[in-house]
Amino acid sequence: MPQKILICHYPGQQDIFTITREAAEAALAKAPKSLPPVEFLYRSYTDPDLSSTISECDAMVAWQVPCDAIRNSRGHLRLVQLSGAGVDHLAPFDWLPPNTVLANASGIHGAKLQEWSAMCLLMLHSHMPHFVTAQRAQQWSKRHSSAIAGKTALIYGTGGLGQAVARAAASLGVRSIGIRRSPAPVENFEHVVGPNEAAPHLATADFVVLTLPLTPQTKGLANAAFFAAMQSSAGFINFGRGGLVVEADLIAALNAEEISGAIIDVTAPEPPPPGSPLWETPRLIITPHISCDDPATYVPEVLALLFDNLDRLLNGREPRNLVNLELAY
Amino acid sequence: MPQKILICHYPGQQDIFTITREAAEAALAKAPKSLPPVEFLYRSYTDPDLSSTISECDAMVAWQVPCDAIRNSRGHLRLVQLSGAGVDHLAPFDWLPPNTVLANASGIHGAKLQEWSAMCLLMLHSHMPHFVTAQRAQQWSKRHSSAIAGKTALIYGTGGLGQAVARAAASLGVRSIGIRRSPAPVENFEHVVGPNEAAPHLATADFVVLTLPLTPQTKGLANAAFFAAMQSSAGFINFGRGGLVVEADLIAALNAEEISGAIIDVTAPEPPPPGSPLWETPRLIITPHISCDDPATYVPEVLALLFDNLDRLLNGREPRNLVNLELAY
Repeated sequence: MPQKILICHYPGQQDIFTITREAAEAALAKAPKSLPPVEFLYRSYTDPDLSSTISECDAMVAWQVPCDAIRNSRGHLRLVQLSGAGVDHLAPFDWLPPNTVLANASGIHGAKLQEWSAMCLLMLHSHMPHFVTAQRAQQWSKRHSSAIAGKTALIYGTGGLGQAVARAAASLGVRSIGIRRSPAPVENFEHVVGPNEAAPHLATADFVVLTLPLTPQTKGLANAAFFAAMQSSAGFINFGRGGLVVEADLIAALNAEEISGAIIDVTAPEPPPPGSPLWETPRLIITPHISCDDPATYVPEVLALLFDNLDRLLNGREPRNLVNLELAY
Repeated sequence: MPQKILICHYPGQQDIFTITREAAEAALAKAPKSLPPVEFLYRSYTDPDLSSTISECDAMVAWQVPCDAIRNSRGHLRLVQLSGAGVDHLAPFDWLPPNTVLANASGIHGAKLQEWSAMCLLMLHSHMPHFVTAQRAQQWSKRHSSAIAGKTALIYGTGGLGQAVARAAASLGVRSIGIRRSPAPVENFEHVVGPNEAAPHLATADFVVLTLPLTPQTKGLANAAFFAAMQSSAGFINFGRGGLVVEADLIAALNAEEISGAIIDVTAPEPPPPGSPLWETPRLIITPHISCDDPATYVPEVLALLFDNLDRLLNGREPRNLVNLELAY
């Protein structure tokens, strides 16, 4: 009997995240040799019979996860493989059957984010948010910058995304300090400290970068006191989730020039509503949640993770990227 | 008798380019050992007695060069050291006495421009001009990008600036093709070809970068036909001089999406006049002619070049960076 894998898409899903039959077959050719034969089922998130389909399946991959259909299924589903990293949209996890594991796609965004964050560090260092704002006002307003080497980045989160930022920083000669719930040495970070030890680094960093998941503990972390603690020459980046930032406080800090500029790839909600002051905040560059997603590699890497995780489960080994249901990341 | 060196500043000169007494003395301490004692004279470009001062001097350094005062001097001036690279503002060179040489500061901009151009290549690749334009229109408009490695940059000019761009490209895995009046191999360029062989490269490059001096031959090089020849996915950068570009044609090409975006650090005139359509052109990012200038190193490097060139002249060796008066660069 082949392993049945449900590939669950949703209406309006972007092409970059959509797993086509061709992509699934191509990835299967590179799956671990020990993986038994598999059969793919393709269904929409909106399919009314999803529960009975899930009851037949061994594994599934999805981003918009049909939580109720999983809860109501009566089968032997072993693995829900997410095609993204954040799980804030899925908590609480009471829909997950006791014998089913949930894995996210943390780590597949690293190569793209490394390049993107090198760009963002250089842009903040080179006053690009200032120049873009000056251009809007038809102002030719010079600001010079020296070499970036020797500057310091404070990176909140030392997981897949944080490590990608630290690699980018290292490639530019920028030192990285990491903030991690349980401090421990991490490659490319000069120091990793706990959240309670962040203050002196926040006050001296040239760049402050958020790569955290959104949890009750991280929500609103970047608030008025946070921005007030930063150097007025420092720049801010958010690659995590919009909810990490109190947006009104970011807007106020930029207007008051408490910080020099910001580049954010995430907002809350996404997109910002029409007329939101975020759109016109000076020295703020907004990108539409695309920083970590490489269309050439996204789906192949999700599928490789799916096959590897199913293979691990079938062989009694622990899957990669298991979501900690209590910490919600 | 000490060698007399005139340090000529001009009203409104930016601090980054201003040679203070402290900077001159500090740089002198690092001058070649063979340089005889020197005496500095500090004068303004607007000093009415400049001609008689120049008649006493052996060398001078300036950016706004007092051409008439040099023409009218009656002395033994051996060296006019420019503190910038471009000489288009000084042609024709009939003001230069026959026994005086003119040297520019080409090459001192390389380290800064390398970092800046890595940023610009990444920004064009990552659709940053599109995102900035979308933000102005309050639009959340996704565009994804893959890794930049394997892309191709066509670089007009293989001198100090062009080589800095090629080094940046190489650091990102981007291939560089160079355009040079007299084709010859140059480090970090995969090929260097003459202007007549540019067409096939212009049609296939992902990035097109101008680093040329402004001369009668290069004026208006980037015109409607030039932009029409580029790929619609390609990005354009100008680090040379504003006059290299027919700005109306650049504006039209960006509005028509004949090219994907542009970043220009130079315009003609500078700044663009109030109300110029350049300010509001979609997918165009304008920076105020600061890309190559590092405040930490600019003046020390100009002075090091000045002392080395004077030392070379006094010892019968050819100075560096001699301006070719016929080619005007």
